[in-house]
Amino acid sequence: MNLKQIAPGEIEKRSFEIIEEELGRELDPVLKPIIKRVIHTTADFSYADTLFFSENAVEKGLQALREGVSIITDTNMGRAGINKKKLEKYGGKVHCFMADEDVAAAALAQQTTRAAVSMDKAAAMQEDFIFAIGNAPTALIRLYELIQEEKIRPRLIIGVPVGFVNVVEAKELILTAGVPVIVARGRKGGSNVAAAICNALIYQL
Amino acid sequence: MNLKQIAPGEIEKRSFEIIEEELGRELDPVLKPIIKRVIHTTADFSYADTLFFSENAVEKGLQALREGVSIITDTNMGRAGINKKKLEKYGGKVHCFMADEDVAAAALAQQTTRAAVSMDKAAAMQEDFIFAIGNAPTALIRLYELIQEEKIRPRLIIGVPVGFVNVVEAKELILTAGVPVIVARGRKGGSNVAAAICNALIYQL
Repeated sequence: MNLKQIAPGEIEKRSFEIIEEELGRELDPVLKPIIKRVIHTTADFSYADTLFFSENAVEKGLQALREGVSIITDTNMGRAGINKKKLEKYGGKVHCFMADEDVAAAALAQQTTRAAVSMDKAAAMQEDFIFAIGNAPTALIRLYELIQEEKIRPRLIIGVPVGFVNVVEAKELILTAGVPVIVARGRKGGSNVAAAICNALIYQL
Repeated sequence: MNLKQIAPGEIEKRSFEIIEEELGRELDPVLKPIIKRVIHTTADFSYADTLFFSENAVEKGLQALREGVSIITDTNMGRAGINKKKLEKYGGKVHCFMADEDVAAAALAQQTTRAAVSMDKAAAMQEDFIFAIGNAPTALIRLYELIQEEKIRPRLIIGVPVGFVNVVEAKELILTAGVPVIVARGRKGGSNVAAAICNALIYQL
Protein backbone atom coordinates (compact mmCIF):
# COMPACT_ATOMS: atom_id res chain seq x y z
CA MET A 1 0.00 0.00 0.00
CA ASN A 2 3.08 2.25 0.06
CA LEU A 3 1.99 3.67 3.41
CA LYS A 4 4.63 4.54 5.94
CA GLN A 5 4.24 2.57 9.13
CA ILE A 6 4.14 5.40 11.65
CA ALA A 7 2.48 5.36 15.06
CA PRO A 8 -0.41 7.84 15.31
CA GLY A 9 1.45 10.01 17.82
CA GLU A 10 4.43 10.28 15.48
CA ILE A 11 2.45 11.60 12.51
CA GLU A 12 2.02 15.13 13.84
CA LYS A 13 5.69 15.33 14.81
CA ARG A 14 6.80 14.15 11.36
CA SER A 15 4.33 16.56 9.70
CA PHE A 16 5.79 19.52 11.56
CA GLU A 17 9.30 18.43 10.52
CA ILE A 18 8.23 18.31 6.86
CA ILE A 19 6.66 21.75 7.15
CA GLU A 20 9.84 23.17 8.65
CA GLU A 21 12.02 21.55 5.97
CA GLU A 22 9.87 22.78 3.10
CA LEU A 23 9.48 26.28 4.51
CA GLY A 24 13.24 26.54 4.23
CA ARG A 25 13.60 29.65 6.37
CA GLU A 26 13.67 30.57 10.01
CA LEU A 27 10.49 31.88 11.58
CA ASP A 28 10.19 34.10 14.64
CA PRO A 29 10.18 31.55 17.49
CA VAL A 30 7.12 33.15 19.12
CA LEU A 31 5.08 33.05 15.90
CA LYS A 32 6.39 29.71 14.67
CA PRO A 33 4.00 27.37 16.55
CA ILE A 34 1.03 29.27 15.13
CA ILE A 35 2.27 29.53 11.55
CA LYS A 36 3.25 25.87 11.53
CA ARG A 37 -0.09 24.70 12.93
CA VAL A 38 -2.02 26.72 10.34
CA ILE A 39 0.07 25.16 7.56
CA HIS A 40 -0.49 21.75 9.18
CA THR A 41 -4.26 22.37 9.08
CA THR A 42 -4.37 23.61 5.48
CA ALA A 43 -1.27 22.19 3.73
CA ASP A 44 -1.01 25.73 2.40
CA PHE A 45 2.39 27.38 2.82
CA SER A 46 1.11 30.79 1.72
CA TYR A 47 0.02 31.42 5.32
CA ALA A 48 3.70 31.87 6.22
CA ASP A 49 3.49 35.11 4.23
CA THR A 50 -0.06 36.26 4.98
CA LEU A 51 -0.38 35.75 8.73
CA PHE A 52 -0.01 39.12 10.43
CA PHE A 53 0.60 39.48 14.16
CA SER A 54 0.25 42.80 15.96
CA GLU A 55 2.94 43.57 18.54
CA ASN A 56 3.03 40.91 21.26
CA ALA A 57 -0.29 39.48 20.06
CA VAL A 58 0.80 35.93 20.90
CA GLU A 59 2.02 36.82 24.38
CA LYS A 60 -1.15 38.77 25.10
CA GLY A 61 -3.34 35.93 23.85
CA LEU A 62 -1.47 33.42 25.99
CA GLN A 63 -1.74 35.67 29.03
CA ALA A 64 -5.51 36.00 28.53
CA LEU A 65 -5.94 32.23 28.20
CA ARG A 66 -3.89 31.68 31.37
CA GLU A 67 -6.27 34.03 33.17
CA GLY A 68 -9.22 31.89 32.06
CA VAL A 69 -10.55 34.22 29.35
CA SER A 70 -13.14 32.52 27.11
CA ILE A 71 -13.19 32.38 23.32
CA ILE A 72 -16.07 33.53 21.09
CA THR A 73 -16.33 31.97 17.62
CA ASP A 74 -18.52 32.95 14.69
CA THR A 75 -19.26 29.36 13.63
CA ASN A 76 -20.13 26.19 15.48
CA MET A 77 -17.59 24.54 13.21
CA GLY A 78 -14.84 26.71 14.66
CA ARG A 79 -16.12 25.98 18.13
CA ALA A 80 -16.03 22.23 17.44
CA GLY A 81 -12.40 22.44 16.32
CA ILE A 82 -11.02 24.06 19.45
CA ASN A 83 -9.46 21.88 22.16
CA LYS A 84 -11.92 22.71 24.92
CA LYS A 85 -10.63 20.18 27.45
CA LYS A 86 -7.27 21.88 27.86
CA LEU A 87 -8.81 25.37 27.72
CA GLU A 88 -11.23 24.49 30.52
CA LYS A 89 -8.35 23.55 32.80
CA TYR A 90 -7.51 27.26 32.84
CA GLY A 91 -11.15 28.29 33.29
CA GLY A 92 -11.91 29.33 29.70
CA LYS A 93 -14.88 28.21 27.63
CA VAL A 94 -15.79 28.46 23.94
CA HIS A 95 -19.03 30.22 23.03
CA CYS A 96 -20.78 30.47 19.68
CA PHE A 97 -24.03 32.43 19.59
CA MET A 98 -24.79 31.93 15.88
CA ALA A 99 -27.56 29.36 16.42
CA ASP A 100 -29.17 31.20 19.34
CA GLU A 101 -32.82 32.12 18.77
CA ASP A 102 -32.44 35.63 20.22
CA VAL A 103 -29.56 36.27 17.81
CA ALA A 104 -31.59 35.13 14.80
CA ALA A 105 -34.55 37.27 15.87
CA ALA A 106 -32.41 40.39 16.43
CA ALA A 107 -30.62 39.94 13.10
CA LEU A 108 -33.97 39.77 11.31
CA ALA A 109 -35.33 42.80 13.18
CA GLN A 110 -32.17 44.87 12.62
CA GLN A 111 -31.66 43.71 9.01
CA THR A 112 -28.13 42.64 9.79
CA THR A 113 -26.21 39.38 10.05
CA ARG A 114 -26.35 36.93 12.94
CA ALA A 115 -22.56 37.27 13.12
CA ALA A 116 -22.84 41.01 13.83
CA VAL A 117 -25.54 40.43 16.44
CA SER A 118 -23.37 37.72 18.04
CA MET A 119 -20.70 40.36 18.62
CA ASP A 120 -23.30 42.65 20.25
CA LYS A 121 -24.32 39.76 22.48
CA ALA A 122 -20.70 39.23 23.51
CA ALA A 123 -20.25 42.95 24.22
CA ALA A 124 -23.35 42.96 26.42
CA MET A 125 -21.82 40.24 28.60
CA GLN A 126 -19.19 42.75 29.81
CA GLU A 127 -16.50 40.07 30.05
CA ASP A 128 -13.00 39.77 28.67
CA PHE A 129 -12.97 37.65 25.53
CA ILE A 130 -10.76 36.36 22.76
CA PHE A 131 -12.58 36.39 19.40
CA ALA A 132 -11.85 33.71 16.80
CA ILE A 133 -13.56 34.84 13.60
CA GLY A 134 -13.11 32.41 10.72
CA ASN A 135 -16.15 33.07 8.61
CA ALA A 136 -18.01 36.37 8.81
CA PRO A 137 -16.44 39.67 7.75
CA THR A 138 -19.47 41.37 9.32
CA ALA A 139 -18.33 40.05 12.71
CA LEU A 140 -15.01 41.86 12.30
CA ILE A 141 -16.72 45.06 11.11
CA ARG A 142 -19.09 45.00 14.09
CA LEU A 143 -16.19 44.33 16.49
CA TYR A 144 -14.38 47.33 15.01
CA GLU A 145 -17.43 49.52 15.62
CA LEU A 146 -17.93 48.21 19.17
CA ILE A 147 -14.26 48.93 19.94
CA GLN A 148 -14.60 52.47 18.53
CA GLU A 149 -17.71 52.97 20.70
CA GLU A 150 -15.75 51.64 23.72
CA LYS A 151 -18.36 48.95 24.28
CA ILE A 152 -15.84 46.14 24.11
CA ARG A 153 -12.10 45.64 24.50
CA PRO A 154 -11.13 42.21 23.13
CA ARG A 155 -8.02 40.66 24.62
CA LEU A 156 -7.19 39.24 21.17
CA ILE A 157 -8.98 39.08 17.83
CA ILE A 158 -8.12 36.19 15.54
CA GLY A 159 -9.42 37.59 12.25
CA VAL A 160 -9.30 34.93 9.56
CA PRO A 161 -12.55 34.92 7.55
CA VAL A 162 -12.30 33.37 4.10
CA GLY A 163 -13.96 34.72 1.00
CA PHE A 164 -14.35 37.01 -1.94
CA VAL A 165 -16.65 39.85 -0.85
CA ASN A 166 -15.70 42.33 1.92
CA VAL A 167 -13.32 39.81 3.47
CA VAL A 168 -10.00 41.43 2.56
CA GLU A 169 -11.36 44.86 3.54
CA ALA A 170 -12.79 43.68 6.88
CA LYS A 171 -9.47 42.08 7.80
CA GLU A 172 -7.54 45.25 6.91
CA LEU A 173 -10.04 47.25 8.99
CA ILE A 174 -9.62 45.15 12.12
CA LEU A 175 -5.83 45.65 11.90
CA THR A 176 -6.46 49.32 12.70
CA ALA A 177 -8.70 48.72 15.73
CA GLY A 178 -5.92 49.18 18.27
CA VAL A 179 -6.33 45.81 19.98
CA PRO A 180 -4.11 42.69 19.69
CA VAL A 181 -4.84 40.86 16.43
CA ILE A 182 -3.73 37.83 14.48
CA VAL A 183 -5.01 38.22 10.91
CA ALA A 184 -4.68 36.15 7.73
CA ARG A 185 -4.39 38.92 5.16
CA GLY A 186 -5.96 38.28 1.78
CA ARG A 187 -8.86 36.05 0.89
CA LYS A 188 -7.82 32.86 2.64
CA GLY A 189 -8.73 31.67 6.10
CA GLY A 190 -11.65 29.74 7.56
CA SER A 191 -13.10 28.25 10.69
CA ASN A 192 -10.46 25.53 10.55
CA VAL A 193 -7.73 28.20 10.51
CA ALA A 194 -9.37 30.05 13.41
CA ALA A 195 -9.51 26.82 15.42
CA ALA A 196 -5.90 25.97 14.53
CA ILE A 197 -4.66 29.33 15.81
CA CYS A 198 -6.63 28.90 19.05
CA ASN A 199 -5.21 25.41 19.49
CA ALA A 200 -1.65 26.57 18.75
CA LEU A 201 -2.07 29.01 21.65
CA ILE A 202 -3.84 26.52 23.94
CA TYR A 203 -1.17 23.83 23.41
CA GLN A 204 1.47 26.28 24.69
CA LEU A 205 -0.27 26.81 28.03
CA MET B 1 -14.40 51.87 5.27
CA ASN B 2 -14.25 50.89 1.59
CA LEU B 3 -16.72 48.06 2.21
CA LYS B 4 -19.24 47.23 -0.46
CA GLN B 5 -22.79 47.64 0.76
CA ILE B 6 -24.20 44.24 -0.13
CA ALA B 7 -27.13 42.48 1.53
CA PRO B 8 -26.05 39.29 3.34
CA GLY B 9 -27.99 37.09 0.91
CA GLU B 10 -26.23 38.67 -2.06
CA ILE B 11 -22.72 37.96 -0.81
CA GLU B 12 -22.72 34.26 -1.64
CA LYS B 13 -24.16 34.94 -5.10
CA ARG B 14 -21.51 37.58 -5.83
CA SER B 15 -18.78 35.28 -4.46
CA PHE B 16 -19.78 32.52 -6.83
CA GLU B 17 -19.74 34.99 -9.75
CA ILE B 18 -16.20 36.08 -8.83
CA ILE B 19 -15.08 32.46 -8.60
CA GLU B 20 -16.53 31.70 -12.02
CA GLU B 21 -14.93 34.81 -13.57
CA GLU B 22 -11.50 34.09 -12.11
CA LEU B 23 -11.60 30.40 -12.97
CA GLY B 24 -11.87 31.51 -16.59
CA ARG B 25 -12.92 28.14 -17.97
CA GLU B 26 -16.00 26.04 -18.25
CA LEU B 27 -16.51 23.27 -15.72
CA ASP B 28 -18.57 20.12 -16.14
CA PRO B 29 -22.06 21.30 -15.08
CA VAL B 30 -22.55 18.31 -12.77
CA LEU B 31 -19.27 18.90 -10.96
CA LYS B 32 -19.42 22.70 -11.00
CA PRO B 33 -21.54 23.26 -7.86
CA ILE B 34 -19.12 21.15 -5.83
CA ILE B 35 -15.91 22.63 -7.22
CA LYS B 36 -17.25 26.16 -6.78
CA ARG B 37 -18.38 25.58 -3.20
CA VAL B 38 -14.99 24.12 -2.24
CA ILE B 39 -13.27 27.19 -3.72
CA HIS B 40 -15.80 29.37 -1.87
CA THR B 41 -14.88 27.62 1.39
CA THR B 42 -11.11 27.83 0.91
CA ALA B 43 -10.46 30.72 -1.52
CA ASP B 44 -8.11 28.21 -3.11
CA PHE B 45 -8.52 27.73 -6.85
CA SER B 46 -6.16 24.75 -6.94
CA TYR B 47 -9.13 22.52 -6.03
CA ALA B 48 -10.42 23.01 -9.59
CA ASP B 49 -7.47 20.85 -10.65
CA THR B 50 -7.20 18.42 -7.75
CA LEU B 51 -10.81 17.38 -7.12
CA PHE B 52 -11.34 13.94 -8.63
CA PHE B 53 -14.80 12.45 -9.20
CA SER B 54 -15.33 8.79 -10.03
CA GLU B 55 -17.92 8.06 -12.72
CA ASN B 56 -21.34 9.42 -11.75
CA ALA B 57 -20.14 10.01 -8.17
CA VAL B 58 -22.26 13.15 -7.84
CA GLU B 59 -25.42 11.53 -9.20
CA LYS B 60 -24.92 8.51 -6.92
CA GLY B 61 -24.34 10.73 -3.89
CA LEU B 62 -27.47 12.76 -4.63
CA GLN B 63 -29.50 9.59 -5.10
CA ALA B 64 -28.32 8.25 -1.73
CA LEU B 65 -29.17 11.52 0.02
CA ARG B 66 -32.63 11.52 -1.56
CA GLU B 67 -33.16 8.03 -0.14
CA GLY B 68 -32.32 9.34 3.35
CA VAL B 69 -28.84 7.86 3.64
CA SER B 70 -26.88 9.30 6.59
CA ILE B 71 -23.39 10.80 6.55
CA ILE B 72 -20.47 9.66 8.73
CA THR B 73 -17.71 12.19 9.41
CA ASP B 74 -14.30 11.68 10.98
CA THR B 75 -14.38 14.95 12.95
CA ASN B 76 -16.99 16.76 14.99
CA MET B 77 -15.83 19.87 13.15
CA GLY B 78 -16.91 18.35 9.84
CA ARG B 79 -20.17 17.29 11.43
CA ALA B 80 -20.78 20.84 12.69
CA GLY B 81 -20.25 22.27 9.20
CA ILE B 82 -22.87 20.17 7.42
CA ASN B 83 -26.36 21.60 6.87
CA LYS B 84 -28.26 19.07 8.95
CA LYS B 85 -31.65 20.78 8.76
CA LYS B 86 -32.03 20.24 5.03
CA LEU B 87 -30.51 16.75 5.19
CA GLU B 88 -32.99 15.68 7.86
CA LYS B 89 -35.91 16.61 5.61
CA TYR B 90 -34.85 13.65 3.48
CA GLY B 91 -34.34 11.39 6.48
CA GLY B 92 -30.55 11.54 6.69
CA LYS B 93 -28.48 12.32 9.80
CA VAL B 94 -24.82 13.14 10.41
CA HIS B 95 -22.88 10.88 12.76
CA CYS B 96 -19.39 11.30 14.17
CA PHE B 97 -18.13 8.57 16.47
CA MET B 98 -14.73 10.09 17.24
CA ALA B 99 -15.61 11.23 20.77
CA ASP B 100 -17.47 8.00 21.70
CA GLU B 101 -16.04 6.22 24.73
CA ASP B 102 -16.32 2.76 23.15
CA VAL B 103 -14.31 4.03 20.16
CA ALA B 104 -11.56 5.46 22.36
CA ALA B 105 -11.37 2.21 24.36
CA ALA B 106 -11.23 0.01 21.25
CA ALA B 107 -8.56 2.22 19.64
CA LEU B 108 -6.41 1.89 22.75
CA ALA B 109 -6.94 -1.86 22.97
CA GLN B 110 -6.23 -2.42 19.26
CA GLN B 111 -3.36 0.07 19.10
CA THR B 112 -4.99 1.88 16.21
CA THR B 113 -6.63 5.26 15.62
CA ARG B 114 -10.09 6.31 16.75
CA ALA B 115 -10.78 7.18 13.12
CA ALA B 116 -10.16 3.58 12.03
CA VAL B 117 -12.34 2.23 14.86
CA SER B 118 -15.07 4.72 13.89
CA MET B 119 -15.17 3.09 10.46
CA ASP B 120 -15.52 -0.35 12.09
CA LYS B 121 -18.39 1.00 14.18
CA ALA B 122 -20.10 2.30 11.03
CA ALA B 123 -19.62 -1.05 9.29
CA ALA B 124 -21.15 -2.90 12.24
CA MET B 125 -24.32 -0.81 11.88
CA GLN B 126 -25.06 -2.58 8.56
CA GLU B 127 -26.57 0.55 7.05
CA ASP B 128 -25.99 2.46 3.85
CA PHE B 129 -23.76 5.48 4.51
CA ILE B 130 -21.96 8.33 2.81
CA PHE B 131 -18.52 8.93 4.37
CA ALA B 132 -17.11 12.45 4.58
CA ILE B 133 -13.47 12.07 5.65
CA GLY B 134 -11.65 15.39 6.01
CA ASN B 135 -8.99 14.58 8.53
CA ALA B 136 -7.79 11.03 9.06
CA PRO B 137 -6.00 9.05 6.36
CA THR B 138 -6.40 6.00 8.62
CA ALA B 139 -10.18 6.29 8.17
CA LEU B 140 -9.75 5.96 4.39
CA ILE B 141 -7.32 3.06 4.77
CA ARG B 142 -9.71 1.22 7.10
CA LEU B 143 -12.64 1.89 4.75
CA TYR B 144 -10.58 0.41 1.91
CA GLU B 145 -9.92 -2.72 3.97
CA LEU B 146 -13.57 -3.05 5.03
CA ILE B 147 -14.66 -2.75 1.39
CA GLN B 148 -12.13 -5.43 0.36
CA GLU B 149 -13.47 -7.69 3.13
CA GLU B 150 -17.04 -6.99 1.90
CA LYS B 151 -18.02 -5.71 5.33
CA ILE B 152 -19.19 -2.35 4.01
CA ARG B 153 -20.33 -0.84 0.73
CA PRO B 154 -20.33 2.98 1.04
CA ARG B 155 -22.73 4.80 -1.24
CA LEU B 156 -20.13 7.55 -1.62
CA ILE B 157 -16.78 8.33 -0.01
CA ILE B 158 -15.74 11.97 0.16
CA GLY B 159 -12.00 11.52 0.74
CA VAL B 160 -10.39 14.85 1.51
CA PRO B 161 -7.99 14.53 4.47
CA VAL B 162 -5.33 17.22 4.68
CA GLY B 163 -1.74 16.63 5.63
CA PHE B 164 1.81 15.60 5.06
CA VAL B 165 2.11 11.98 6.18
CA ASN B 166 0.20 9.10 4.49
CA VAL B 167 -2.47 11.52 3.25
CA VAL B 168 -1.64 11.51 -0.47
CA GLU B 169 -1.20 7.73 -0.41
CA ALA B 170 -4.48 7.06 1.46
CA LYS B 171 -6.40 9.21 -1.01
CA GLU B 172 -4.85 7.41 -3.99
CA LEU B 173 -5.70 4.09 -2.32
CA ILE B 174 -9.37 4.91 -1.84
CA LEU B 175 -9.64 5.79 -5.56
CA THR B 176 -9.08 2.11 -6.27
CA ALA B 177 -11.72 0.78 -3.87
CA GLY B 178 -14.38 0.37 -6.54
CA VAL B 179 -17.00 2.57 -4.85
CA PRO B 180 -18.12 6.10 -5.79
CA VAL B 181 -15.57 8.65 -4.57
CA ILE B 182 -14.92 12.37 -4.56
CA VAL B 183 -11.26 12.92 -3.64
CA ALA B 184 -9.04 16.00 -3.30
CA ARG B 185 -5.78 14.60 -4.68
CA GLY B 186 -2.60 15.89 -3.11
CA ARG B 187 -2.03 17.19 0.37
CA LYS B 188 -4.87 19.66 0.64
CA GLY B 189 -8.34 19.15 2.04
CA GLY B 190 -9.83 19.34 5.51
CA SER B 191 -13.01 19.01 7.52
CA ASN B 192 -14.20 22.31 6.04
CA VAL B 193 -13.73 20.90 2.53
CA ALA B 194 -15.56 17.69 3.49
CA ALA B 195 -18.47 19.72 4.86
CA ALA B 196 -18.50 21.98 1.78
CA ILE B 197 -18.80 18.98 -0.54
CA CYS B 198 -21.62 17.53 1.57
CA ASN B 199 -23.42 20.88 1.53
CA ALA B 200 -22.94 21.31 -2.24
CA LEU B 201 -24.77 17.99 -2.62
CA ILE B 202 -27.42 18.75 0.00
CA TYR B 203 -28.25 22.17 -1.52
CA GLN B 204 -29.06 20.43 -4.82
CA LEU B 205 -31.71 18.15 -3.29
